[in-house]
Amino acid sequence: MTTELLGKSIIGYGRSEASAGLLYGNSATTGERLQPAYHSATNEETARAAEMAGAAFPAYRAKPARERAAFLRKIAENLEGLGDRLVERVVTETALPEARVKGERARTCGQLRFFADMIEEGSWVDARIDRADSERKPAPKPDIRSMLRPLGPVAVFCASNFPLAFSVAGGDTATALACGCPVVVKAHMSHPATAELCGEALMAAAQSTGMPEGVFSLLFGEGTRIGQALVAHPAIKAAGFTGSRTGGLALVKTAQSRPDPIPVYAEMSSVNPVFVLPNALAQRGAQIAAGLHGSVTLGVGQFCTNPGLVLVPEGGAGDGLASALAEKLRGTAPASMLNATIFKSYSKIVTTRSGDARVRALVAASNGERTASAALFETDAPTFLKNPDLAEEMFGPATILIRYGKFEDTLDMVRHMEGNLTATIQMAAGDEDAAAKLVAALETRVGRIVFNGYPTGVEVCQAMVHGGPYPATPDGRTTSVGGRAIERWVRAVCWQDSPVELLPEELRDDNPRGVMRIVDGVRGR
Amino acid sequence: MTTELLGKSIIGYGRSEASAGLLYGNSATTGERLQPAYHSATNEETARAAEMAGAAFPAYRAKPARERAAFLRKIAENLEGLGDRLVERVVTETALPEARVKGERARTCGQLRFFADMIEEGSWVDARIDRADSERKPAPKPDIRSMLRPLGPVAVFCASNFPLAFSVAGGDTATALACGCPVVVKAHMSHPATAELCGEALMAAAQSTGMPEGVFSLLFGEGTRIGQALVAHPAIKAAGFTGSRTGGLALVKTAQSRPDPIPVYAEMSSVNPVFVLPNALAQRGAQIAAGLHGSVTLGVGQFCTNPGLVLVPEGGAGDGLASALAEKLRGTAPASMLNATIFKSYSKIVTTRSGDARVRALVAASNGERTASAALFETDAPTFLKNPDLAEEMFGPATILIRYGKFEDTLDMVRHMEGNLTATIQMAAGDEDAAAKLVAALETRVGRIVFNGYPTGVEVCQAMVHGGPYPATPDGRTTSVGGRAIERWVRAVCWQDSPVELLPEELRDDNPRGVMRIVDGVRGR
Repeated sequence: MTTELLGKSIIGYGRSEASAGLLYGNSATTGERLQPAYHSATNEETARAAEMAGAAFPAYRAKPARERAAFLRKIAENLEGLGDRLVERVVTETALPEARVKGERARTCGQLRFFADMIEEGSWVDARIDRADSERKPAPKPDIRSMLRPLGPVAVFCASNFPLAFSVAGGDTATALACGCPVVVKAHMSHPATAELCGEALMAAAQSTGMPEGVFSLLFGEGTRIGQALVAHPAIKAAGFTGSRTGGLALVKTAQSRPDPIPVYAEMSSVNPVFVLPNALAQRGAQIAAGLHGSVTLGVGQFCTNPGLVLVPEGGAGDGLASALAEKLRGTAPASMLNATIFKSYSKIVTTRSGDARVRALVAASNGERTASAALFETDAPTFLKNPDLAEEMFGPATILIRYGKFEDTLDMVRHMEGNLTATIQMAAGDEDAAAKLVAALETRVGRIVFNGYPTGVEVCQAMVHGGPYPATPDGRTTSVGGRAIERWVRAVCWQDSPVELLPEELRDDNPRGVMRIVDGVRGR
Repeated sequence: MTTELLGKSIIGYGRSEASAGLLYGNSATTGERLQPAYHSATNEETARAAEMAGAAFPAYRAKPARERAAFLRKIAENLEGLGDRLVERVVTETALPEARVKGERARTCGQLRFFADMIEEGSWVDARIDRADSERKPAPKPDIRSMLRPLGPVAVFCASNFPLAFSVAGGDTATALACGCPVVVKAHMSHPATAELCGEALMAAAQSTGMPEGVFSLLFGEGTRIGQALVAHPAIKAAGFTGSRTGGLALVKTAQSRPDPIPVYAEMSSVNPVFVLPNALAQRGAQIAAGLHGSVTLGVGQFCTNPGLVLVPEGGAGDGLASALAEKLRGTAPASMLNATIFKSYSKIVTTRSGDARVRALVAASNGERTASAALFETDAPTFLKNPDLAEEMFGPATILIRYGKFEDTLDMVRHMEGNLTATIQMAAGDEDAAAKLVAALETRVGRIVFNGYPTGVEVCQAMVHGGPYPATPDGRTTSVGGRAIERWVRAVCWQDSPVELLPEELRDDNPRGVMRIVDGVRGR
């Protein structure tokens, strides 16, 4: 791996030699411009990266799973090999604390290995075999076999708030590469050097494990121009995006307007309501206030799972929770946000909200020139229900308490709320009936229901669902984290009466890979 | 069940009492108007059906799988109980032969029982459990569990060409009801009485098995008005459609323009190319001609899997296949089509094609006033590749032979062809290398690859894939037939640290339903 930052897009196994202009990363803490300058990819280079991905696809998808797994593991190893150099650069570019960055690196590498293990085990391909029956009446039964196969090259858009886990070598890339799709990554210009370091690690892994050139490219430059061109390019067959609703929906629109529409999996916005039920409040009000404080301020509130709405009963116990939470938020030191754009948006919305007569500012924002302070607002359920704009996401360390008089108000809230990634229920003995009603109502509105915990923290495991109905994502049937995330980049393909030599291994009678299958309707290996 | 045809929409457990005008079915053979008159559903009734479906959803999805399975089986029993009365009406309305109608009824009932068995077995819900680990460092691991849950009410659009298997109680309805989604069906006005009989059978089954009112409604009336209103209605959460590309894309557009976009699964158009490789041609040319003849003319060519393009080598053996196929098609008796619209479209395209200088009409269409005769066209590969409009679907008993000089022409064809439901390879010893290249190219272009057979005939089994890349469907990741068809109406929902009482049975530690799951990464029961 090269030791120098070059500021140039990675296209296949080469570096960009053209430039559509210069862009710079900045220190998230001081705003200072960082070196090197980054050359924006030209339109020709963007198209070339897509075409190389298309050209690499047949060879890459034909690689045995164990080779793709070795590639993923090598990426993880190379990322770790970057050591403190990567950590320091992430800290500089994002102002995220070192411990968080190290944790995110561990998660990113763990995720690559998770999917390496999963494709080596192989059952995820959902192989199904229905054998022929030449004696069947009135017509003989053909032999039908099917399994999931990759869609083609995937465009991946890095997230500002997860410079490692949802960026160059993050979940979208890991899952797309795992199932056999080449990727073209668009770097986030909020952390270009982080992207370059990760991209270099990924490219080196591809080369050293013998992957075809074009399996990975990394483009620097303006998000809209390059993003739109990628999603419109005929060689690209799907896209993964984590970011704003505006950005996500613009990509969705382009994808749907293509002569051949393609799926865009976007994780766009979520306010993650927390429902505090009366017995939980009575028994653990102070503890819940502390937990909420931790979750609201974690990572300076810059998580898509940040709890942006908290429903708390009216009355003294609820007042106590509000005061305790307010006190803790007031005592939280202002902190640098990921970039100037995010800081400005946050400042704007909390300042506006602080002067909004429909809410009480329990902790009014007092943002510095570069640092965001926490904010807390409060209103009553009827006011909140009448003013749906109050549910707008405040991306940062702020939340709004909705005080409810009767439990039915919370069900009304669920009926009126948009789709969310998560909802959380704080419950204790005596709250069971209310919780059961909430769960039934929430099941169709969110991806994940958290009990007696907090929505921040998304475990990478087979069962995780990090998705949710529109507008949390444009396609509520999918998840961007967890085992099922790989299913976004595949479709089932069927072979009828195929000669055995033309079948994928997973569909052969002798099941050489030993995967779980459905054979004549029965699941087994 | 009532014994009389009422000509009124079924809304919940009642019948429409309003009317937005009268429509009539016709005899497909004579064009004669049939009784009774059908009252077109009003906009208010359309909305009411959707709202009743929304209201029924919580109770319906909470029904245990064995009760939903009993409901599906009762529908099948009731359909069979309609006996000859149903068969005769289908024959009158569609001109399909009695044997085909009986076969389609068997398939429809078999499909209902297939999904009843599948939901009773239960593993399709893809239950996943990752257990907690309070000792994990740096943070304790939460307990995460997830499984597939129904989306909500589904709008189902009946197909003209499958009055039973893709209509009121067809595949879309069976799969939606199986997984817990209520359905609102829009009848096809080409066979309204067939729809009413099936609707009555379905409603009676819902009542006798104790399903909540609103789990099923059936609307008669103009397709565009009612279809658009249904897909735009907030209570509807997905739609299934089989029909024209124009009709399907109009629904997709409406669905994507909603404040909360919903998925529309449409099966729209397909030309199902057949690749005849040289050794197969040399060894079994006459047999392939006979097989193609059967497939092209089956059901008067009115199948979405009809082979509309056949690639045949140039030279004497290919000439022989062309002559043999032409002779058989010339000798095929003209036959009534499903309705006047389909007949007119077919007449128009084959008449135009017969006078098209870019092709040779080996069998020119000589359609009668009501009956369609078979047609066969021929052109060479370069002409075909230069004129993509020649690939347009001719819905009826017609096909076009593309004569190719070298094998690479067939790969060029695949590169340029749109997405299709199927592709077929006729191969013999010596064709293996060519077939392997074709399979690799076709894998990303079609849903099902048939070897040494014909694309018509879609087996209902776990492994079937009846779908394909755009424009065969708008969402090439799904199938409308086979076990995976149920996955169109569901999404994964996740419970984190949930009390056991609030978990679905499939996610409880003791696995009371004995379903296959992934527990801590390991598949088993």
